[in-house]
Amino acid sequence: MGPGDSSSLARYPASPRAVGTRGSEPGLRSCSLAELPVQSHAPKSPALHGCLLASIIPSVRESTSFVRNIFNGQLVPDNVFPFPSGGNGGISPSLILSGYLKEVNNPATNEKLESIEEATLTGLKDLGAFGLQVPEELGGTGLKNSQYARIVEVVGLHDLGVGIILGAHQSIGFKGILLFGTPSQKEKYLPKLASGEITAAFCLTEPASGSDAASIRTVADLSPCGKFYTLNGEKIWISNGGIAEIFTVFAKTPIKVETGEMKERISAFIVERAFGGVTSGPPEKKMGIKCSNTAGVHFDNVKVPAENLLGGLGKGFKVAMNILNNGRFGMASALAGTMRGVIVKAADHAANRTQFGDKISNYGAIQEKIARMAMLHYVTESMAYVLSANMDMKVTDYKLEAAISKIFASEAAWHVTDEVIQVLGGMGYMQEAGVEKIMRDLRIFRIFEGTNDILRLFVALTGIQVKTQKNLFCSLFCTSLSLFFFSLFPFSPFRKVGISSGFSLQGLVHSDLDSSTVQVGEAASVRPSSPRSLFPDKQFHLKRVADAAIDMYAMAVVLSRCARVVEGGEGILREEGPPCQAAALMVSWQGELLGNMKLISHAVVQNKGVYTAHPLGF
Amino acid sequence: MGPGDSSSLARYPASPRAVGTRGSEPGLRSCSLAELPVQSHAPKSPALHGCLLASIIPSVRESTSFVRNIFNGQLVPDNVFPFPSGGNGGISPSLILSGYLKEVNNPATNEKLESIEEATLTGLKDLGAFGLQVPEELGGTGLKNSQYARIVEVVGLHDLGVGIILGAHQSIGFKGILLFGTPSQKEKYLPKLASGEITAAFCLTEPASGSDAASIRTVADLSPCGKFYTLNGEKIWISNGGIAEIFTVFAKTPIKVETGEMKERISAFIVERAFGGVTSGPPEKKMGIKCSNTAGVHFDNVKVPAENLLGGLGKGFKVAMNILNNGRFGMASALAGTMRGVIVKAADHAANRTQFGDKISNYGAIQEKIARMAMLHYVTESMAYVLSANMDMKVTDYKLEAAISKIFASEAAWHVTDEVIQVLGGMGYMQEAGVEKIMRDLRIFRIFEGTNDILRLFVALTGIQVKTQKNLFCSLFCTSLSLFFFSLFPFSPFRKVGISSGFSLQGLVHSDLDSSTVQVGEAASVRPSSPRSLFPDKQFHLKRVADAAIDMYAMAVVLSRCARVVEGGEGILREEGPPCQAAALMVSWQGELLGNMKLISHAVVQNKGVYTAHPLGF
Repeated sequence: MGPGDSSSLARYPASPRAVGTRGSEPGLRSCSLAELPVQSHAPKSPALHGCLLASIIPSVRESTSFVRNIFNGQLVPDNVFPFPSGGNGGISPSLILSGYLKEVNNPATNEKLESIEEATLTGLKDLGAFGLQVPEELGGTGLKNSQYARIVEVVGLHDLGVGIILGAHQSIGFKGILLFGTPSQKEKYLPKLASGEITAAFCLTEPASGSDAASIRTVADLSPCGKFYTLNGEKIWISNGGIAEIFTVFAKTPIKVETGEMKERISAFIVERAFGGVTSGPPEKKMGIKCSNTAGVHFDNVKVPAENLLGGLGKGFKVAMNILNNGRFGMASALAGTMRGVIVKAADHAANRTQFGDKISNYGAIQEKIARMAMLHYVTESMAYVLSANMDMKVTDYKLEAAISKIFASEAAWHVTDEVIQVLGGMGYMQEAGVEKIMRDLRIFRIFEGTNDILRLFVALTGIQVKTQKNLFCSLFCTSLSLFFFSLFPFSPFRKVGISSGFSLQGLVHSDLDSSTVQVGEAASVRPSSPRSLFPDKQFHLKRVADAAIDMYAMAVVLSRCARVVEGGEGILREEGPPCQAAALMVSWQGELLGNMKLISHAVVQNKGVYTAHPLGF
Repeated sequence: MGPGDSSSLARYPASPRAVGTRGSEPGLRSCSLAELPVQSHAPKSPALHGCLLASIIPSVRESTSFVRNIFNGQLVPDNVFPFPSGGNGGISPSLILSGYLKEVNNPATNEKLESIEEATLTGLKDLGAFGLQVPEELGGTGLKNSQYARIVEVVGLHDLGVGIILGAHQSIGFKGILLFGTPSQKEKYLPKLASGEITAAFCLTEPASGSDAASIRTVADLSPCGKFYTLNGEKIWISNGGIAEIFTVFAKTPIKVETGEMKERISAFIVERAFGGVTSGPPEKKMGIKCSNTAGVHFDNVKVPAENLLGGLGKGFKVAMNILNNGRFGMASALAGTMRGVIVKAADHAANRTQFGDKISNYGAIQEKIARMAMLHYVTESMAYVLSANMDMKVTDYKLEAAISKIFASEAAWHVTDEVIQVLGGMGYMQEAGVEKIMRDLRIFRIFEGTNDILRLFVALTGIQVKTQKNLFCSLFCTSLSLFFFSLFPFSPFRKVGISSGFSLQGLVHSDLDSSTVQVGEAASVRPSSPRSLFPDKQFHLKRVADAAIDMYAMAVVLSRCARVVEGGEGILREEGPPCQAAALMVSWQGELLGNMKLISHAVVQNKGVYTAHPLGF
């Protein structure tokens, strides 16, 4: 089917309204993507999960964040247990989108063109994919976070380049308007953005300001009349930078602080290309995601109306961090989709390639690779849907979990795709297999929207709260370090020097999972005797503290999902048991893992891909 | 300087002879590359190294291979200690080649053209780079293995694509003629190949035969007159396949075995494109090494003269494996060069990029990355030059070391380059930084010429000699497994269940290195009590056995190099000490490493790249 052939699109629900209308006409568009069931954290077995919580959790606490609390040596299971449910049935818009992308979108062609084929874009807009989380009354699809996650998972499976365009547009490009916009800002901009008539971009990074976002040099000066800001500065590597009409721009503004002094603080602005003075550079030549436009954006005396200030004067850094935190869950689910897609290729090749007289799927070396792929996918998927359910439940403190999900997903997807190439051998290196492109696309995910290195420091530093609780540093630090030692030496003498905190998840999950439950609980209660002497430099050990927290969170979400599986009865357990158990073990004791490898690999190969039920059930 | 501008080449020594002449005219060509000093294993301090050997090594043994012997729990240091010396001075052809490539070769242009610019090729031919190991009397440069390694290291630093063309031509393409050719075969083919007038390719892989090389289907039938073979078959993914004139082709031939039966055995043939019936497909579209031609080659009733049989009827598998074993040392040194090159980029960026008010080279997270890069490079470089010196010394059993060097180098280079991109952040993802291309080029090195997975099985299976010593399986297996346990838990209880073999390297190296020496020695003497229960599948544990052997060899070559450094006096020790010590520790106990990270990183950044002296001294 060629571009512009609309006959095929007619088979999918399409919005009857014209592109760019502002009204809220649900039509077939919202009929398709908006009817996704919402995830729910309502426990399936209240008797099992109910009263025990009170006995485990300290009566007073500031946050229900699982990760933040493990830094205090406390297991607070609210946000992780029980595993969220996807709700009951309904039609499956994710399948509609999947079918659409499969039939219409050609990743290789997009890459060659260095843009997305027009037919694909039009169809995506008609399906409502450009305004997935914009409220229906403002012309959007009105999805909850878990529903959004499910949709971008499908996009991530088919074409990460398309995912970047959609994500740069709505996950960060205009997310600021959605989160912090005034009613009039929302009404003015969101309908056209939701319909895809115009595209948005997020402008934070500058030549001298990458990870250190607070050091930007772009400035916005208020005019003497107070009616507009004059914006000057240079932004680089802006996704959609060359095609966007609306930019969320971060700039320094002078602001009077408490002492009466004038200081420079960051503020956020909604900037239209139409304001004049906005120019963008040529598309950057990148390793991957080539169909996604990346360009520098230059602001030269741009007159921005004062009412386009976003989130309040001097609140720009908070706006930026909130947007980024809020957008990370989508990256985790998109990459779970990518993994699901490439695992199909590995399973297919392993099942059909004969060497040394047998299908290579029967060799342990291949089985181990495929089983690890399945486990890494399982963890990522579990994180993505626990996190998005948390956000749907209006949990406010999820930034550590969001950072961890982004780190884990981007590294897992990279590792999985790398191993798929290895399983495919020479064929994996050829462009026609379609895996090397995915690997190139993936490389940026460990860098952008917060490098994984910076995010690790963020997790560790936030967790141990160095700045606000300096006096508590040692005790908090010792506790968090204990996780690291546990993950390295679960059965080593380090365990013996620990002082048990008495916290436990037992009772929250089925007794069949007791051994895993004990492991998760014990990990948070072990304190090594003298850890500091081993880590003479702060960042060296902060990285390890973060890794320990990542492992802990991975264990917890997997244990939670396993618990749901066990309660689902024998049939599900037989299917999901091995990857579930193995994923939990993966982060603790490698030795016990190997027994499951063969089982998992066989199941993946026989099922021609990931075989565990989707956490949302659809 | 543009292609074809010969004025610059005149500054480099160039051969006066016309391309394609067969005579042996040393001229400036051999004057340049042929005068490389040869590595020598002659101990610097005979008193220290001499008499102790006898007391350590069993009086009767089949092989001096370090790796093979550790599978028997024996430390046989002959091939590793002392670290080979590069000889004394002489002009430095590697610098000449380096200057030439730097000035003439443009990797990005080559990639775009999907071939090497003609000017670059002509210059390389004039420098003698197409016949580096061909004897001078046959028109080649006549280099020893360690000299060849030094040259391809320079090529690997500048452009891996160029490296593939040179390697496919001489490291495997016509290596069979060099190793197994009759005098008349050598005289007929080598001069033209050495001058680069014609190019060679190695034709083993087929659509249904990759890792399982013995399963090829190409056939060669002897004519009733006995004068020629008729060759039919299809080879795929052949480097230089579309441009070569000479092919080393492997095909099944009927052969009478001892029982009198006719069986099919593999034989090798020298096939000229000019014989007729040889066609090649279009260049494959690959992830990287795009300037290197990769194509399918089809043989359709090709009449091959009987005298073009190479290495004897039915000896083809041995020929193929010998060629591959013999070629691997070059891959290790080429990739050491690649690492050296990309580390410069990381050091440069870290030294100049300011974030959070300081150069990022001052942050621990960056320091750890740079230090690890330096260590991985140090190990790879050490392996490459120990191995090539072994080959120069006519050591016959080096195949395990060669396999390990290929595995380690390809994985180290991949990891180092990946981390360089991470240090560069967004810039690393851009084509203009030139690192993403190197990463794409590198991906094939873990796959071709024996996938690292197959090579790991090869190391483990050869080491424990399952086939020939089934009765000894358990004891050999336990010994090798002990290495694995040691590398995981050097200070764990597993150590205590071991039975010391009493072998030691103490006395062979300076007493300052005693603690490292003891570690290497003990690693080979530890036997866990009951390892088998942990590894229910053979390939799962074979991989781990191989990993243990790889770690052991890495420790040994680094210890050997360290010993030379220590003997070199305080000055060298101060410089090389940290990476040396750290590289040795890297494979044993991570905890002690961190103290060195900062030191190593500082030194790399200050030196704008790798700062340890080259093992050859030039």
